[in-house]
Amino acid sequence: MARSGEFSVIRNIFAPLAVRAPGALALRDDAALLPALTGREWAVTKDALVEGVHFLKNDPADLIARKSLRVNLSDLAAKGAKPEFYLLALSLPAWIDDAWIQTFASCLAADQDIFGVALIGGDTTATPGPLTLSITALGTVAEGKMIRRDGAREGDIVFVTGSVGEAGAGLALLKGEGRAVPERDVLIARYRLPEPRVVLGARLVGLAHACADVSDGLIADLGHIADASGVRMEIDAARVPVSPAVKAFWGADAIVRAATSGDDYELAFTAPQSARAGRDSAAREAGVALSEIGRVTSGSGIVLLAEGSQPIPLASWGFRHF
Amino acid sequence: MARSGEFSVIRNIFAPLAVRAPGALALRDDAALLPALTGREWAVTKDALVEGVHFLKNDPADLIARKSLRVNLSDLAAKGAKPEFYLLALSLPAWIDDAWIQTFASCLAADQDIFGVALIGGDTTATPGPLTLSITALGTVAEGKMIRRDGAREGDIVFVTGSVGEAGAGLALLKGEGRAVPERDVLIARYRLPEPRVVLGARLVGLAHACADVSDGLIADLGHIADASGVRMEIDAARVPVSPAVKAFWGADAIVRAATSGDDYELAFTAPQSARAGRDSAAREAGVALSEIGRVTSGSGIVLLAEGSQPIPLASWGFRHF
Repeated sequence: MARSGEFSVIRNIFAPLAVRAPGALALRDDAALLPALTGREWAVTKDALVEGVHFLKNDPADLIARKSLRVNLSDLAAKGAKPEFYLLALSLPAWIDDAWIQTFASCLAADQDIFGVALIGGDTTATPGPLTLSITALGTVAEGKMIRRDGAREGDIVFVTGSVGEAGAGLALLKGEGRAVPERDVLIARYRLPEPRVVLGARLVGLAHACADVSDGLIADLGHIADASGVRMEIDAARVPVSPAVKAFWGADAIVRAATSGDDYELAFTAPQSARAGRDSAAREAGVALSEIGRVTSGSGIVLLAEGSQPIPLASWGFRHF
Repeated sequence: MARSGEFSVIRNIFAPLAVRAPGALALRDDAALLPALTGREWAVTKDALVEGVHFLKNDPADLIARKSLRVNLSDLAAKGAKPEFYLLALSLPAWIDDAWIQTFASCLAADQDIFGVALIGGDTTATPGPLTLSITALGTVAEGKMIRRDGAREGDIVFVTGSVGEAGAGLALLKGEGRAVPERDVLIARYRLPEPRVVLGARLVGLAHACADVSDGLIADLGHIADASGVRMEIDAARVPVSPAVKAFWGADAIVRAATSGDDYELAFTAPQSARAGRDSAAREAGVALSEIGRVTSGSGIVLLAEGSQPIPLASWGFRHF
């Protein structure tokens, strides 16, 4: 199947994703308009994804679509912002045909329904290189209430949602590393399809002092919070939530591997002791498990402590893009 | 010179571009915050640029930086929006080193000063393919006053700023097409370095009924306005502003070539007769020439008329990306 021209792709395939957003002007204008807000403000984030770096060449269109959108929604979730809109820049190699774009768009449509967002603009170009996407996501948050990275305070408790390390194990499996485990498909799915914690994120406004999503790795992302906040963090290795599948996959290394591999898209945050009740009910209502994994102290940096409080040397503090 | 890690590139090279925007949070957070507005609203646009498609592999870093930013500012200008912020996603092939990134960033800094904008976020990744950029630009416009593509009305006059066709001739020269002309460098510079009409664009609010920037080509972009507005446009070939250099370069074909080649980044707009005084003073104050090139009638489509009102057949209505 051939590929239609740029204008017909936008009109026929992408414009239906914009119908719920009047400010998108049916994707027929040079810019989109954001609705005026009262008492709330816009948070904006932008991530790029490249074939061969953030996903694999043979990954199906539906997973590429969803991952690209979801990693951006995860950034908004970490800020307590409610996702509203996104813009998409798509640079398409010659092998991509209309059928691929149709699948891609219909999976975006499915995620739009799940997360309550709409497409409002973007760009579609050719590329002589790998498939490259960039999404800009916009969400709203109560004025002055965005959960930042620099708000952690001495005495806060450190939390993480769900469990970490499954996505990293899934990526290792796709690369042919590690050992065979029965949960192979679950681990790979976790790498390919993040579950952004948007419901819990919005509920953490006023409860969490600082938050980030776990994209580079738990220790790396908490380290960013410690760094931005001018505090020190102590994380208890034994309390880091790691699934039996990840333990089976990595063996003795499992906790360090899980704490330093990326792509989990869980939320890591700090909150005062006093927020316990609100925090627990927020997690319960969002249907997300919460683990208390450490504490914020004075000083700087982050340390992963073995039982007996010995620091565990970390060969790698999470994924670096280059 | 080697390339530093992602975090050090952001902190050392890009964070200085964000110092004037408190909402950028020093590029250290997962999202940026847009300031609250009163009586104005946000317009947002996003363009991707790919090496080998939108610029050439040997184009210098400074021109790539400026072109990427300016094509987005041009979209805002066409909407009458005042540019305020931008986000940048940069996918870097291995050959790009810190020195390249430094040059790239310092040229963005220079354009930030010219256009009054600041970086507020983005992403930096590796790519196994060509250098790929995406910029999302945000501007403000008086509430309800954005100049759209669908506002052209029967009886409007059609205008274009500056002159068209120089960028197209510059691109042809870079590809080794066309004939040698003494203005070679001027034409190439016009292709490589657009001059977004941001001052005039903001002044056209309340004066123009519809506007687009000339990126696909004068006839193609005016055709989009005609299409979105449900009107017909008649453009007089003899009144299309084409420089002597373009006439010398293309010879007898010059006007059709100029009207159907892209990358001019002039503003093409329609306005009622009654707006003449305001429009002329806006153009004078912005230091931009304005040409009256046609009129809006009832019907649909766009036609380029030779003297004697014969329609000129157009082999190609401007550049299509694929």
